[in-house]
Amino acid sequence: MDKKPLILVTNDDGITAPGIRSLIKVMNSIGDVVVVAPDSPQSGMGHAITVNATLQCNKEHIDNGPQTEYSTSGTPADCVKLAKHEILKRVPDLCVSGINHGSNASINVIYSGTMSAAVEAGIEGIPAIGFSLCDYNWEANFEHLEPFVKQIAQNVLDNGLPEGVVLNVNFPKLESNSIKGIKVCKQAEGNWEENFDKRQNPQGKDYYWLSGKFVSHDDSEDTDVFALENGYISLVPVTYDLTAHHFIKTLNTWKLNG
Amino acid sequence: MDKKPLILVTNDDGITAPGIRSLIKVMNSIGDVVVVAPDSPQSGMGHAITVNATLQCNKEHIDNGPQTEYSTSGTPADCVKLAKHEILKRVPDLCVSGINHGSNASINVIYSGTMSAAVEAGIEGIPAIGFSLCDYNWEANFEHLEPFVKQIAQNVLDNGLPEGVVLNVNFPKLESNSIKGIKVCKQAEGNWEENFDKRQNPQGKDYYWLSGKFVSHDDSEDTDVFALENGYISLVPVTYDLTAHHFIKTLNTWKLNG
Repeated sequence: MDKKPLILVTNDDGITAPGIRSLIKVMNSIGDVVVVAPDSPQSGMGHAITVNATLQCNKEHIDNGPQTEYSTSGTPADCVKLAKHEILKRVPDLCVSGINHGSNASINVIYSGTMSAAVEAGIEGIPAIGFSLCDYNWEANFEHLEPFVKQIAQNVLDNGLPEGVVLNVNFPKLESNSIKGIKVCKQAEGNWEENFDKRQNPQGKDYYWLSGKFVSHDDSEDTDVFALENGYISLVPVTYDLTAHHFIKTLNTWKLNG
Repeated sequence: MDKKPLILVTNDDGITAPGIRSLIKVMNSIGDVVVVAPDSPQSGMGHAITVNATLQCNKEHIDNGPQTEYSTSGTPADCVKLAKHEILKRVPDLCVSGINHGSNASINVIYSGTMSAAVEAGIEGIPAIGFSLCDYNWEANFEHLEPFVKQIAQNVLDNGLPEGVVLNVNFPKLESNSIKGIKVCKQAEGNWEENFDKRQNPQGKDYYWLSGKFVSHDDSEDTDVFALENGYISLVPVTYDLTAHHFIKTLNTWKLNG
């Protein structure tokens, strides 16, 4: 690539989150950076888009880096749509989302606003990566992850991604010298076992807080959960063709007509 | 099955939408029905869950059917979680979501609250189907679709679904005698070409409305879009293993470590 790549940066924890500031720093060392990110946290938003309300967009100046920044009132997927269709002059060469505070491995990819931004970029024809750190602590250290972020982003810029594929990268909660490297994986089978916390409001009416713990149902050694538990950075290629191709033949044997 | 099946009904258009009332009517003819649905429309919510706010849940009496009904302040995925973990005494035999007002064929499955409820049920181990009618009109007729809904639901109860698979059913906007039957399909490739409508508020500040049109990129004849355009009801098996398995071998050739 002769000229510097144009890189769109977004996230779901909001434009001031430490994780996105780290991601912006790395991307400034690779290309021209435009940030379009939510003005407030959007965790758990999945692939939500704003269809029944208006979107606001404001130019921001948060640190002294060379990037251009905008915050929006929308979801991560809205940010990518607004960036491509209203803010950017040309289709970016790369979209990176994160670094999310918390795991997006296994079934978490379904609930993830971080990954929904990457998937939306993929749908819009932009090579895309979602990055997450398995640590909810707002004070978590991201600095030692930056060489890995750069390595993966540079690979995507050099090699491209096929149509219909984006990348889901998760970092283990480990210090630099304990990380064994990057491992290509599949999404582990697992789910959240919910345990709603039922309380009463001051008027005596019940309400609920969603709460639960992640349970893996997958013992195989080629999954993202296995990689993370064994000191590796997990790298899962993600598709948005949700067709369960393997079940089409069986479905065709069902008595569906007449 | 000796006893009547327990059927959970939900949607994303809200508990009073005509589409869910039609679905409840059909399910009452098959089993014992419990409705847990959003108290207001949730279109475009994707697989959002409520992690940073509380959930309210109210018992409702909307028509004179035998079903039990609850509305919640949450998303479709929240409704399924609340139903399974707080409201129902046992795991339901079937979860049906819809009938959605508007298409969930092709890439719409990604943005769909209707399908997120079905996917959430699948993750929780409940056989699940999302139903949608390709007609946004609130006055749309659902009655002629009811025999097809019953046929597909009965097939799922009789045959079961494999782990990791739920069904996405879309009805064409056609009268009964023009519908050619049910066709098993794959998800068509396509995207939305956005065209943000930029306006100014009374204070002179810009805001945006998301708007756009769906564009199919897929000429093959085994897709949901093709089926719907040719007078068929589309039936796509949907997975929530998002791994792009076909790209793992190539990714392993990348220079990712050192």
